[in-house]
Amino acid sequence: MPLKQYIEANSERFLGELLELLKIPSVSADPAYRKEVFNAAEYVKKSLEEAGVDKAEICQTAGYPIVYGEKIVDVRAPTVLVYGHYDVQPADPLELWDSPPFEPVIKKTGLHPNGAIFARGAADDKGQFFMHVKAFEAMLAGGELSCNVKFMIEGEEEVGSENLDIFVRANKEKLAADVVLISDTSMISLEHPSVTVGLRGLAYMQVEVTGPDKDLHSGTFGGSVANPINVLCKMIASLHDENNHITIPGFYDQVREYGKEYRDKLNQAPFDEGEFKRKLDIKETYGEKGYTTIERVGIRPTLDVNGIWGGYIGEGAKTVLPSKASAKISMRLVPDQDHRSIARLFENHFKSIAPPAVKVKVVPHHGGQAAVVPTDSHGYRAAEAAIMDAFGKKAIPTREGGSIPITALFQKVLGLDPILLGFGLDTDAIHSPNEHYGLDNYFKGIETIALFFKHFQLQHKK
Amino acid sequence: MPLKQYIEANSERFLGELLELLKIPSVSADPAYRKEVFNAAEYVKKSLEEAGVDKAEICQTAGYPIVYGEKIVDVRAPTVLVYGHYDVQPADPLELWDSPPFEPVIKKTGLHPNGAIFARGAADDKGQFFMHVKAFEAMLAGGELSCNVKFMIEGEEEVGSENLDIFVRANKEKLAADVVLISDTSMISLEHPSVTVGLRGLAYMQVEVTGPDKDLHSGTFGGSVANPINVLCKMIASLHDENNHITIPGFYDQVREYGKEYRDKLNQAPFDEGEFKRKLDIKETYGEKGYTTIERVGIRPTLDVNGIWGGYIGEGAKTVLPSKASAKISMRLVPDQDHRSIARLFENHFKSIAPPAVKVKVVPHHGGQAAVVPTDSHGYRAAEAAIMDAFGKKAIPTREGGSIPITALFQKVLGLDPILLGFGLDTDAIHSPNEHYGLDNYFKGIETIALFFKHFQLQHKK
Repeated sequence: MPLKQYIEANSERFLGELLELLKIPSVSADPAYRKEVFNAAEYVKKSLEEAGVDKAEICQTAGYPIVYGEKIVDVRAPTVLVYGHYDVQPADPLELWDSPPFEPVIKKTGLHPNGAIFARGAADDKGQFFMHVKAFEAMLAGGELSCNVKFMIEGEEEVGSENLDIFVRANKEKLAADVVLISDTSMISLEHPSVTVGLRGLAYMQVEVTGPDKDLHSGTFGGSVANPINVLCKMIASLHDENNHITIPGFYDQVREYGKEYRDKLNQAPFDEGEFKRKLDIKETYGEKGYTTIERVGIRPTLDVNGIWGGYIGEGAKTVLPSKASAKISMRLVPDQDHRSIARLFENHFKSIAPPAVKVKVVPHHGGQAAVVPTDSHGYRAAEAAIMDAFGKKAIPTREGGSIPITALFQKVLGLDPILLGFGLDTDAIHSPNEHYGLDNYFKGIETIALFFKHFQLQHKK
Repeated sequence: MPLKQYIEANSERFLGELLELLKIPSVSADPAYRKEVFNAAEYVKKSLEEAGVDKAEICQTAGYPIVYGEKIVDVRAPTVLVYGHYDVQPADPLELWDSPPFEPVIKKTGLHPNGAIFARGAADDKGQFFMHVKAFEAMLAGGELSCNVKFMIEGEEEVGSENLDIFVRANKEKLAADVVLISDTSMISLEHPSVTVGLRGLAYMQVEVTGPDKDLHSGTFGGSVANPINVLCKMIASLHDENNHITIPGFYDQVREYGKEYRDKLNQAPFDEGEFKRKLDIKETYGEKGYTTIERVGIRPTLDVNGIWGGYIGEGAKTVLPSKASAKISMRLVPDQDHRSIARLFENHFKSIAPPAVKVKVVPHHGGQAAVVPTDSHGYRAAEAAIMDAFGKKAIPTREGGSIPITALFQKVLGLDPILLGFGLDTDAIHSPNEHYGLDNYFKGIETIALFFKHFQLQHKK
């Protein structure tokens, strides 16, 4: 049966299987969900087996397991290594979800007239890596699988992929391939299909400021001892100057600067600043002086507080002068910043700016390197051709603000440039309440992925 | 039976009755405890009746009720109006309590070799106002009650006493008295008994900063839109300058400045800065340049963040760029700052410093005026004499950092200078985990209060 027809004939099952996976709350950041993360790994293994791999296995690590599966059709054929992750972000704040995060529902929206799946992980990354499992099944069923395929689906992407790093270094031979294919990014839109050619890195820190050793009455003590919240705010505020440049000494030393030509090309991507502001209900964008919005998220590093807490946060008023205040602070990095060096720079600087009246603790959470993908490879050309076949349009290369730390790992350890063939949209609300993934994106993605395999084999023969 | 003997003979019961009251979680700030606040009012009414008042009543208000009770011994005798509050602060953070906040236990400590009662409200203010009920019982039983007494015990002190304000204005005749006696402050120590002669006012605000209308992925959007946490930190940081002066325009306009003589006298109070730092485990004190610690909490206004929250505050890492960040911010005020004017100044200023990329909401919570108590009144002299009798020492007049907003109300509406005869210690951890109140403070307080009545009647006759 031709590929497109097979996908259509099996679309209900392809969707149902994904919904089952989305029901498993595999939140890797929260130990309360530990068992569910393991359950998700089992589900992935079973899915690979049912799709037709030669073998599938659960590879234990010091943390959550990596699911590996492979199908070798011909030792002379090129091999595609598919990477994805079955863990998801925490679902908080729960009260902002219109439906429970782990009870997927299909709803139509303005952007998704044919419906979208609403659930935590729908787009990031269960809905996206599962397209590969189904594309593989479809190719195999239609006798069209022209490349060998190796699946490596991990469970710790949302917490830093530390054990994947170890696994990859220890299994270079097993993972040997000609390209890594990843769907964990966005495209501009179904009308403007794009391929991500750059990703930012990440350094994620947690800080704690301690003033007095216990909570105090703000009347009796207010004005005489350092209030750790006030101090933390002052310290955080000082991390940007009046032009929104980051003030950590040495922070920009390794940042790659781009010439006018490169920046002009980048700014040609279709982007409507007015629509961007309307969608987010903001009056103005906000960022580093001297750069456009596309540049700010594409080629410039940032520093954002992801969470802050301290003192009384319940209803009503409590006149406490708290002992502690804390924040989670992350920096998005660009080539050639090294996330470990940046974490060290941050830690040293943050401690240095604390007044002597407080104590400061800095704990690095996790990090990953930024990556740039070349556009002159077999893999990139195969992606372009697949998109041309599926969408009838030339793919637009984009630099994306998010981080997939393992991208740099594959380049360094396996010597493979990953192809970032994502089908999500920026509006999918990944990491937010009401995350969703368009049904059209899901099925168009399955088709495009299968076409990638066809074109990759053709490129390889050249 | 002589007073002291009666107190000793009944000490176990005097303690047991307080412990029962402390078991009622009458948290006025949290609607979840609504029923318990009413239960506490009932308990107070019953206690007054059992102690021997002519009549006791629960006076309903738009919020929590005011318990009123009176005993008229002689229409020609002077009348003492006793004020206190039966509501308590929230007990959070619960995990920092060594024993449950509403299951009082007696434990010995270094400062309290004879034991202290550990419970929310032990010192603020259940343990303190209850001394008056027991002193009254003791005087009555011994035939020594020489003044008329009126009790007014409210349930909204910790949330701003809004309905007390209305009640006092509407019941001037009923509340007519010659002095207001309040035990809701600290003394320096049992070795250095003191009387509070100044209190700071309060303006308590809640602020909310909104960036994008939903939580976003900090990778995809970081650097292009205003992060409300970063912005809130910047705004809060800007509220103090490098000398820790508050930067709100007009904030200091009404602050009373004191001459060298007054400040010198204030600084003569026994205070050991080294011990202060050791007790709080801090390397340095921290506050407004140009003032001592005693001045900073006594005669200078302050601005403290009492709580802050935004973004992801759970375990692990979540790369969210949140939609909102919030803070509770309170200002301690001094004469002659008006808390309503200050709240307006704050609101206007805070909105004016917000960048156009965010929206800001400011909600005033509650406030109260600062107060100064004259030291040449019958009441103050009676307090001095009572302390001399009970402690064998001259009372030290102190300016305290906390606020009892109703102090100014009594001065203005009833024309009465309150006597702030508190027996707590700064180390009692009021508004904090492990709040406690010394048994010696409790029983010595009962004795001193009874002596106050004796001396007030003598002063009155002069």
